[in-house]
This record gives sequence, structure tokens and C-alpha cells, in this order.
Amino acid sequence: MTQKMFITNAAQLITMAGSTDGPATREAMSQLNLIEDGSLFMEDGKIVEAGPDKEIREKYQEHFQSAEQIDATGKIVAPGLVDPHTHLVHAGTRENEYAMRLKGRTYMDIMQAGGGIHATTRATQQASHEQLYDESKKRLNQFLLHGVTTVEAKSGYGLTLEHELKQLEVAEQLNNDHPVDLVSTFMGAHAIPMDEKNNPDKFVDRVIQEMLPEVADKKLAVFNDVFCERGVFTPEQSRRVLEAGKEYGLIPKIHADEIEPYEGAELAASIGAISADHLLKASENGIKKMAEAGVVGVLLPGTAFFLMAEFAEARKMIDAGVAVALSTDANPGSSPTISLPFIMNLGCLKMGMTPEEVLTATTINAAHAIGCASEVGSLESGKKADVTIFDVPNYLTLSYKYGMNHVDTVVKAGIPLVRGGQLQ
Amino acid sequence: MTQKMFITNAAQLITMAGSTDGPATREAMSQLNLIEDGSLFMEDGKIVEAGPDKEIREKYQEHFQSAEQIDATGKIVAPGLVDPHTHLVHAGTRENEYAMRLKGRTYMDIMQAGGGIHATTRATQQASHEQLYDESKKRLNQFLLHGVTTVEAKSGYGLTLEHELKQLEVAEQLNNDHPVDLVSTFMGAHAIPMDEKNNPDKFVDRVIQEMLPEVADKKLAVFNDVFCERGVFTPEQSRRVLEAGKEYGLIPKIHADEIEPYEGAELAASIGAISADHLLKASENGIKKMAEAGVVGVLLPGTAFFLMAEFAEARKMIDAGVAVALSTDANPGSSPTISLPFIMNLGCLKMGMTPEEVLTATTINAAHAIGCASEVGSLESGKKADVTIFDVPNYLTLSYKYGMNHVDTVVKAGIPLVRGGQLQ
Ligand SMILES: [Zn+2]
Ligand SMILES: [Zn+2]
Repeated sequence: MTQKMFITNAAQLITMAGSTDGPATREAMSQLNLIEDGSLFMEDGKIVEAGPDKEIREKYQEHFQSAEQIDATGKIVAPGLVDPHTHLVHAGTRENEYAMRLKGRTYMDIMQAGGGIHATTRATQQASHEQLYDESKKRLNQFLLHGVTTVEAKSGYGLTLEHELKQLEVAEQLNNDHPVDLVSTFMGAHAIPMDEKNNPDKFVDRVIQEMLPEVADKKLAVFNDVFCERGVFTPEQSRRVLEAGKEYGLIPKIHADEIEPYEGAELAASIGAISADHLLKASENGIKKMAEAGVVGVLLPGTAFFLMAEFAEARKMIDAGVAVALSTDANPGSSPTISLPFIMNLGCLKMGMTPEEVLTATTINAAHAIGCASEVGSLESGKKADVTIFDVPNYLTLSYKYGMNHVDTVVKAGIPLVRGGQLQ
Repeated sequence: MTQKMFITNAAQLITMAGSTDGPATREAMSQLNLIEDGSLFMEDGKIVEAGPDKEIREKYQEHFQSAEQIDATGKIVAPGLVDPHTHLVHAGTRENEYAMRLKGRTYMDIMQAGGGIHATTRATQQASHEQLYDESKKRLNQFLLHGVTTVEAKSGYGLTLEHELKQLEVAEQLNNDHPVDLVSTFMGAHAIPMDEKNNPDKFVDRVIQEMLPEVADKKLAVFNDVFCERGVFTPEQSRRVLEAGKEYGLIPKIHADEIEPYEGAELAASIGAISADHLLKASENGIKKMAEAGVVGVLLPGTAFFLMAEFAEARKMIDAGVAVALSTDANPGSSPTISLPFIMNLGCLKMGMTPEEVLTATTINAAHAIGCASEVGSLESGKKADVTIFDVPNYLTLSYKYGMNHVDTVVKAGIPLVRGGQLQ
């Protein structure tokens, strides 16, 4: 039996068509390929066609009787959002550290005292597979309620072979069980464990010799990420980790230039990373190199907002030709939100991006940042029927009525999972 | 028949008890009077008692059979939020101006070209009572979904006797029809109408001679507000309007020192205003005077966020002894959100307030700012049974998991109106 669905009469149907071959840059980041009074026909979990309501109704009228129909009158219809950088799978929360920060302690200060990443590492190591699965599943449901249908998920709170595998296995199981698609990244080089503080190179050896082969062998990750930052991993150590990953077919990603300029953007370009993320302090040369090499810049303004730091220079990057994507960076320390719609607000109000650019940055460019633009990120024939309907009359209102979740309906692979803002 | 309700087993029951006689200042702004594992017994729309779960269950056990029970295990229970400064009743939206601002136009610039307040004035004048009612009611429902049970609502988009009365009559009807309580403020002196641009004093005369008497006679407002700002109303004109209102028993409020220091805070103190609002550029002397006179400082960080301006110095004001409240400033130009929970996030992350202070600022101090602290703003015997339940394990998480609406249940005067984040 085939499963058919129409979404009809959208005030604005934002298709994002046209950038599947490569991420959108410069002016292309403003191309929504928007259809007013638009409709969408889907079949068997795939998009058949997006077009003007009248055309779609005529062309596919034979299916109208047997199809499910969602009326989007007065609402906007967009591709399911893609979050290309999360630390979804972890245990525990750190609101106590947040309260300390509000009283003046810094993030790096708390981390060096054994809090920060180390606190989450302890909690994640201690958690069973089931506990990790349950906590992460709740977050995945919240992502869905905020319009997100594809999520990248990193390991990196295990920091031993056993626990890194556990994180990635939880992500794999969630990808199988939960309707939201997960794309996994191995990030053994997320932090230097407390007990190897004085021997970072030895830990890097362990990541490369112990962890990478197992992760690759079990096919638990597509990407290999590293936290390249002073006090964490040097550019040289980062390069070693990423080169080693390439040997196993893992595509490089990099947490780059978050706290100070550290040649992370340059490394991303020279090593052929698919994305460089954070980039608050990326150098002009690094930005130029990223644009030339086609590295997607994944910006995480929620982290700057939550850590009360400066924001990445999105405007400058876009003008320099970098394909920009946006993400929550969802994690318990520096960005505990899962609201990608709020991140879009920050893109406009804090980083000088336009409402069109933030849509591109959370759909097709986000899909490119995690290598799945041929499947998701736009409403084009043959792609997955992943659709988010927002209860606003136009896309400007998504950030005009800021700080609110306007998601009304979420369809994942042709199945409506959220209606009226509620999980079904 | 009496209507009885228990809310039991709250992880944290935040009563805010203790500041009903006067607003909380300094250290008192950090007193939540929080009960762990707390319960609440309500009868006939009023709070009977808040206390430890075991005590409440024992003391009121005879009512358990006949009462409705809401289990708040793992959640926090707080007084229904109070929004003390909104422009709820208006017609139309201005997302087009927002898009212009993102491209570099300023708010004052757009206003002087006939946009801004003038655009909303035209739309509001043209709207029928019914249209205004319908639009405003939708917003009121959204307030409820965000945990708000009492809302101040200003006129000031009519700017003629007829249309100012229309706005206030819509507010009155909403107060009667809708479960959320409205407290009305007359704000005829919100802007100088385009056609009287060169004759502001004549317009001030009209506000005083034509509008104020009618508003007072019809008992349509409790407060009288004025936009004291260079290019709008001078401190002298503002004083005339507020003094005239006092003659009719209307209590002064003032939009003060938003764009530049203009002695608005000083005026609020000397005229005996119940609150001075905005205060981004309030002088040190003005802040001192407000503290001495007991004027509540209503801060509107959403407006600064949305207009990409500096934030008010909340920390300095609290340390100087000003009772601070927080509000959305909900309006179509400078703050189109209705999310008071997000405003609380901004209080912590952008104005140096603590999580305790932002709770005080949106409950008991907000109630004081609109003269209804004897009825709402805390969970104390005899007050209205207005209660908001957030699906977070502790109050730190309200802003730790930033940019999200954590409201699960809203009880208004003993009736559950929101459950599972959905209007009933
Ligand atoms: Zn990260
Ligand atoms: Zn206002």
C-alpha cells in the first residue's frame, strides 16, 4: 500500500530548491525558492513535487481521495530543519555551573577545576546504555517539537574506548528506533581526560590507535571531530587525529577558533574538512581559506548567547563566500537549548544575518554540513518528505515574533509526528 | 458547590511569600520562599495553603476525595506570571519594518517616516472593535500558554478619543470574557499624531481635556502612562499629562529614558508614579530617586534585544535599592514577543540578574508594578489560585535550558486552562 499526503494552500511554501549539488554561498543564501499559495505532494515518504496549489491539485487530482491532507492555510511550510552540530547523547545536566557563571566564574575556569566537560564525562561514563538512551530520546522528542527532523550527534563524553562506543551505539539505536534521523560523529578528541592532563600526546595516541579503528570497524560514525583550542588540542594534535580518521574513511570536522584564534579555520581548509564549527575568533585568512576550500562554517550563536561571549562574524563570512550553517550545539555545558528556531532568531538579531540566510543555514546548508543534502534540506522531488509547518503567515515572523516556538506540524518521511505543537 | 484542587509533590514549590505589603528590593529579591516537595491546596479559586507535601496532605485530607489533583512530581510550581507592561490591544503587525531594520534602518528613522507607532495607529484606528478583540484574544491565549495569568494592557494606538476608548473597551471586554486578568492603562500620550507633529502642546491639551475625563468617567483605566522621550513628549508635557490624570484618580506610570537620558526616572519619583518603565538610559540620580520613592523599575529587555540596543542596568538598579520587575513590552514595533519566560532568560543572560531575581521580577514585583500584589504574585493564603507549573526539575533550568517554553500547566483562579503545554 502506498502512503500519500498533500500539504495544501501554504501562505508561503519555502522549497529551498537549487543548492543540492553544493552549499549555498553569498546571494544564493538568500534564495528560498518560495511559492506563494503553494502545495506539496508526497508519496511513500518521499517528495513528489512542490508547486503552486492549483497546479499540484490538478496534476495529482487522482490521488486526492486516497491521500492524507494537511491544510496549511495561513501558515508557512519549510523543509524539516537540520541541526548539524549537537552533543545529543550525554548524561546529566549542569545548571549548577550555570548559576556559578552568573556569579562571575568563567567556563574555562570551571572546566579546569574538574567541572565542565569533565563533569559530563563522569556522568556519561557512569550511565548505562539504557539511561543514556532514555535521556537522549527525550531531547530528540524536543528537537522534533521544534521542527528538527535530522540531527548530527557527537560522541566525546566517553573519552575511553568503552564509553565512546557506548555513546555511538546509543546514537545508532536512536537512529533505528526514533523517527528523527541521526548522523554520527566520533569525537574522542573532545577533551583531555583529567588523569592524562599532563600527557595529551599519549591520549591522542590512544584516540588514534585504540578508538578510531574500533569506531570505523563497527561503522559507528561518518565524521571525525576534534576540539582544537588552546588548553585542549593543538593544531598539530588535531591534524594527527583528523588525518588518522581519514585513513579509516571518516570525514574531518573541527571545533575551531571558539575562544581564541588558533588556526582552526586554516586547518579545516587544508585538511579538507566538511565543516569548521564555532569560528568566533576565526582569522580573516582562515575565513578566506574556508571559502576557497568549500568548508561549511557551522555557527553556534546559542553558545555565545549562553556564555555571554561575542558572536561569530556571520555577515563577514557570508560576504567572504563561506557557506554558513547554524546549529544549537546542544550540550549540557555551553548550550543546553534544543531550540533551533531560537538559534535562527539569534542569527538575525545578533549576527547580522537576514531571515532568508538563517533559513538556508538551518536547511540545505545544514544538510551539506553533514553530508546529507541529497536526501534532506529542501523540498525537491525524490528527497525525504521531511516538512515543518510553522503557524506564522510569513517567514519574517519566525524571528519577528522572537523567542517563541512557532512549530505547528512536523512531518517526517511522510508521517505527521507533531500536530498543533504536540507530539502525536 | 465548592471547587477544590491540590497540586502535589512539586520538586520545588516557589511561593514568593513575604513581599505582599511592598515590592521586594535588594536581598529580598532573592527570597523565593521555596518549599521542596511542596503541595498547594486551593478552594473556590483562592489559595488556602502552600506547604510541605506531607503537612498539606494531612491537614486537608478530608478534601482529598472531592478535590481535583494535579501531580507535579519532577516539576516546579510557581505563582502565575504577571506581565506588567504590554500593548496587547492593537491591530496589525510590522514584520516589514523589522526586515528594514535588519538592513540598517533605525527604529526612530522608520517612525519619523510615518512607520513605527504611526503604522500601528492607522491599523488600530481602522480596525473594528471585533477585529481588535479577536487579534488581542489570540495574543492573550499565547500569554496563557507561556504561563502568564495577569497582563497589564495600554491604550495609545488610538490617539483620538474615539479610538482610545475603543482600545480600552476591548481590554475591558477581554477582562470580562477571558480568564486572564487584564489591568488597563490609558496612554493617550503614546505618540504625537502625524497631523499634529508641529503642535504637540495642542495634542497634550486634547489628551488632558478630551480624553482623560471620558476615560475616567467610564472607569476604563487604573493607570495613566506617557512616553517621555526626546522627539515625543518632554518632561514638562509628561508632567502635565500625569498630574491631570491624578486629578481623576489615575495613577501615573511612565515610559522613561529609553533612548537617551531625559529625566524620566526623576519625574517618576517626584510625581509618585507606581512604576517607571524601560530605563535603559536612566541617570544615577534618577535611579537613586526611584529607590527612595519606592517606584518599581519595569525593565523590558526584549525591546533592547529586538532593537539590538544596550540593555538596562538591572544589576545597578537592584544594588541601588530599586524594586525591579520584568515585562515583555509586547507590541508590534519594538517587542513582538509574548514570551515572558524568554524575557526571564534575558534578565539572567543580558542584565546580570540572578535566577531568583528574575522570578521575583515576574511575579510579586510585577504585581506591585500594577497595583495588584494583594491578589496575585505569590502563593499565599487568600490570594487568587493562579499557578504555573513548569516541566523542569528546578528553577535554574528555566534559563539554563534557554530559549524554550517550559510551561506545562496553568491554573487560573483554580481552573486548569493549560495542560501538557496545550490550551484546554
Ligand atoms: Zn560542540
Ligand atoms: Zn511600552
